[in-house]
Amino acid sequence: MRIALGVEYAGDAFLGWQSQPHGRGVQDALEQALAGICAHPVRVHCAGRTDAGVHASAQVVHFDTASVRPPGAWVRGVNALLPAAVAVRWAVEIDEDFHARYRAVARRYRYLLHNTPVRPALLAGRVGWFHSPLDVERMAAAAALLRGRHDFSAFRAAGCQARTPVRDLYQAEVTRHGEYVVFDFHADGFLHHMIRNLVGALCYVGKGKHPPAWIGELLMQRDRTRAAPTFMPDGLYLCGVDYPARWSLPDEGRIIALPRIPLI
Amino acid sequence: MRIALGVEYAGDAFLGWQSQPHGRGVQDALEQALAGICAHPVRVHCAGRTDAGVHASAQVVHFDTASVRPPGAWVRGVNALLPAAVAVRWAVEIDEDFHARYRAVARRYRYLLHNTPVRPALLAGRVGWFHSPLDVERMAAAAALLRGRHDFSAFRAAGCQARTPVRDLYQAEVTRHGEYVVFDFHADGFLHHMIRNLVGALCYVGKGKHPPAWIGELLMQRDRTRAAPTFMPDGLYLCGVDYPARWSLPDEGRIIALPRIPLI
Repeated sequence: MRIALGVEYAGDAFLGWQSQPHGRGVQDALEQALAGICAHPVRVHCAGRTDAGVHASAQVVHFDTASVRPPGAWVRGVNALLPAAVAVRWAVEIDEDFHARYRAVARRYRYLLHNTPVRPALLAGRVGWFHSPLDVERMAAAAALLRGRHDFSAFRAAGCQARTPVRDLYQAEVTRHGEYVVFDFHADGFLHHMIRNLVGALCYVGKGKHPPAWIGELLMQRDRTRAAPTFMPDGLYLCGVDYPARWSLPDEGRIIALPRIPLI
Repeated sequence: MRIALGVEYAGDAFLGWQSQPHGRGVQDALEQALAGICAHPVRVHCAGRTDAGVHASAQVVHFDTASVRPPGAWVRGVNALLPAAVAVRWAVEIDEDFHARYRAVARRYRYLLHNTPVRPALLAGRVGWFHSPLDVERMAAAAALLRGRHDFSAFRAAGCQARTPVRDLYQAEVTRHGEYVVFDFHADGFLHHMIRNLVGALCYVGKGKHPPAWIGELLMQRDRTRAAPTFMPDGLYLCGVDYPARWSLPDEGRIIALPRIPLI
């Protein structure tokens, strides 16, 4: 029996998604909790292997088990065994040909940036920070140049293991919400560090170091060394994974990062 | 020279405001960072001594020093020496008769409650959690009974050292924002655990265990043992301190807790 889970976690509590020798990956925590419910060792597969410090509001994983449990066990039961910084949001039984990683056709990431002279403390580790004023109209104009099918070598980490640097970026948007600048990306896939590299370059445009057209030049030059440094992971959230319509998962199309709390 | 500071901190990183033998109070972190800038030991006084796990978006403190420093030193300089979970937001030189605690005439607290079947992970430690559905209209009706000048003995911790249990509650409001229930309180002062005890009792009303009028009965009975258990500290924020108009501090009237981030 194959089971798919929707998982949420605060990345600053873990050394990334992937299993670590000392057990400090999100994967380790989840596999240990699932083993407690299944009463056998469990291996989970995820849609997006987030780096250290990167969060997820809508990670998707799957695992196989022969253990039959009441429906509540895969959510409330597992959550009772997980650390506070990770929780299962939903669980469904799914066809054996579903695979959280290989069947995913697109992913969504959001970056939350606190744009204030003073660094954040309440949301330290949960938002990025840029102290100089950012011109979001310039950044949005630059982001528009990123949309579409491109070779993203200029925004690819040296150690990236993807077969090709070409990705189809369906959405690249930058919007301001008071003291926050929000970056939204939706693509068929992302290269290693691609979003953090894009956010870094867009901030260079936003602070006036380069014109929006510089982003187009970087894309054409395909040279990582000409772009901006990799931005801090703190504000990055995996917030959506798309699968073909035959699997209709509970979170489909839902994008969340931090909750909306009204400012008075 | 007396200096007033606006301070923000995530309470789950500390053992409360007050200085601790092992230095894990917010006060310890702040005094140590200020001593680094002043080059002499510093004692700070705060408006509200928050308990372990309780956050502040707008704590006010003051301290005395003879050290003359450029204006940026008390914000950026101190922040460079503070742990990530605490930051100074503003600093002003102020009259010697100002006192962060004794001159405060009112304080504001906000409680953020995540009201969902599944526990929060991304905001674990930063929001409270209640898994059963809450009827916010009933809670708002009950909160209305709390407003005004009352003996709050029913909501006072056993160890509370206040001289009198009478407080004037100017505001007591409960509102729903999607999956979140937000409690706002404004009073001339608060007893120990008063807000967490009020939130606990209002949740009993919200889940249907008692009618709104029960809150009025608790007030009249003045018996702590008849009310609800003390609610978890996780969602509680000190978010405003009022002083007489002669001191006009940068944050006056500003209420913030977690930032407003749009849900798409």
